[in-house]
Amino acid sequence: MTNTQISESATPQDGPGADAGSLAIVCGGGTLPMAVAEAASRRGRRVVLFPVRGWADPAAVERYPHHWIGLVQAGRLVRLARAEGCRDVVFIGSAVRPSVLDLRLDWLTLRSLPALYRSYRGGDDHLLTTIVRVCEEHGFRVLGAHEVAPDILVPAGSIGSLSPAPRDLADIARGLALLRAIGPFDVGQAVVVADNHVLAVEGAEGTDGMLARIADLRARGRVATPVGVGVLIKAPKPDQDRRVDLPAIGPTTVTEAARAGLAGVAVAAGSAIVAEPADVAKAADAARVFVYGFDDRPPQ
Amino acid sequence: MTNTQISESATPQDGPGADAGSLAIVCGGGTLPMAVAEAASRRGRRVVLFPVRGWADPAAVERYPHHWIGLVQAGRLVRLARAEGCRDVVFIGSAVRPSVLDLRLDWLTLRSLPALYRSYRGGDDHLLTTIVRVCEEHGFRVLGAHEVAPDILVPAGSIGSLSPAPRDLADIARGLALLRAIGPFDVGQAVVVADNHVLAVEGAEGTDGMLARIADLRARGRVATPVGVGVLIKAPKPDQDRRVDLPAIGPTTVTEAARAGLAGVAVAAGSAIVAEPADVAKAADAARVFVYGFDDRPPQ
Repeated sequence: MTNTQISESATPQDGPGADAGSLAIVCGGGTLPMAVAEAASRRGRRVVLFPVRGWADPAAVERYPHHWIGLVQAGRLVRLARAEGCRDVVFIGSAVRPSVLDLRLDWLTLRSLPALYRSYRGGDDHLLTTIVRVCEEHGFRVLGAHEVAPDILVPAGSIGSLSPAPRDLADIARGLALLRAIGPFDVGQAVVVADNHVLAVEGAEGTDGMLARIADLRARGRVATPVGVGVLIKAPKPDQDRRVDLPAIGPTTVTEAARAGLAGVAVAAGSAIVAEPADVAKAADAARVFVYGFDDRPPQ
Repeated sequence: MTNTQISESATPQDGPGADAGSLAIVCGGGTLPMAVAEAASRRGRRVVLFPVRGWADPAAVERYPHHWIGLVQAGRLVRLARAEGCRDVVFIGSAVRPSVLDLRLDWLTLRSLPALYRSYRGGDDHLLTTIVRVCEEHGFRVLGAHEVAPDILVPAGSIGSLSPAPRDLADIARGLALLRAIGPFDVGQAVVVADNHVLAVEGAEGTDGMLARIADLRARGRVATPVGVGVLIKAPKPDQDRRVDLPAIGPTTVTEAARAGLAGVAVAAGSAIVAEPADVAKAADAARVFVYGFDDRPPQ
């Protein structure tokens, strides 16, 4: 991409490296935000973190310039990101759906409140979409984490030494079809299918909570399939804004899947994120489960 | 219906009272089997119970002639039901999906094993459907519990003194649409929707397990909607064999829904079962939640 093109239309369609300047990373929980910060730094980008209070890891963010923000403190984010010379913003990390009472609203947020309230009622998707729109209205370009750090996208094929068996591939296909069917309802992005039987659909409890439930059901004799059968399937919703909420896996996902007695973890290649792929491969081999990136393009 | 009609075609299309003789009730767990036994007895039918080991309540079944059976002991069921003069069989009560190792297979079952195995892989629906077919192949007529005890069907409208508010009706509509979308996947028959946001989809944990999960998430601040918002929605799968697995509610469903902080419980009128409706109404009023039978006919 040439400079000419950039000056002609500085829109989100421009490549992520097209614009010099600092990158604002709004950090949720987990290890992903730091993996993205490191990958962007390696590419020569100055990074400023905006860790969200209650979610981000205080020790980890110390390594970069950072400003703590409350969730939905859009005014503080906009002001500080501008002062830091950021034009691009990335939202990344796990987000626990907050109690409305825990939200620290500031003035800009209050002005957006009717829209935020409507989006809050409509599910997580809409909440994030609204925050993205507020940032865009204030001149920022919101990028997907994978655009500033493409190496965090799950590749096609196996991570680690094990691969899915034909039965696992059938479970993956069924799980993906189920995820497509529930897509319009803004439920979770993950299901567990064991030998063609749907064991669980992710709801407000999140992926780790769902896997812990299966481990618990299994301990009480409530799971009919033997240990080593069944797959955790994760894929983005069909009409998801891929800049803000791509499904993600990490070493914990792998160890929790093993504890739930599953054969492996399957995620949409190219549209799911893996923090610390080397650690994920190590965890997968140690737990004797597969981690597999499948092609999730809808059937033509 | 006249005797002439009966002798002409003794098929499952005949009314349930068309045939005198004893009624075999295969009893799973919970209070429903005894409610059905009592309702059928009140209508003058001789009842013989076949409680399933590990599921049925030993104290409750003492009140009727009964023979304990292992799950999938089709041979023992067929032989004893014939000896007791039963021609009609009802399957009713909660069923915990068993470990394959716990199944006590007998000879007739072993002969049906390939079909059973296939059906077992295919999910609960198919397992039940296969057992029904085995009974039918041996000359029994399999009836729905509601056919021998119509008074156990959930009526349209409220049970108890509270009714759903407009927001609750919107949650019910969304939950019903979601249940229709997941119908082909043989997942659960229940979801929880709170202010348009899907909190949970029932999987292998069952309805009570799902409600306990929401109570737990709420205690940890993970449910955004306040107490008193949200509905448990239950409806049969679109192509369900309504003779064997209608969704059911009882007083426990109501108290668990209240503990999960929901506004109420909504079930498909005429195609869901309520054990002990008077107790359900009492529990609903005591817990200040509604119990509501909605019209679940698919849109034309």
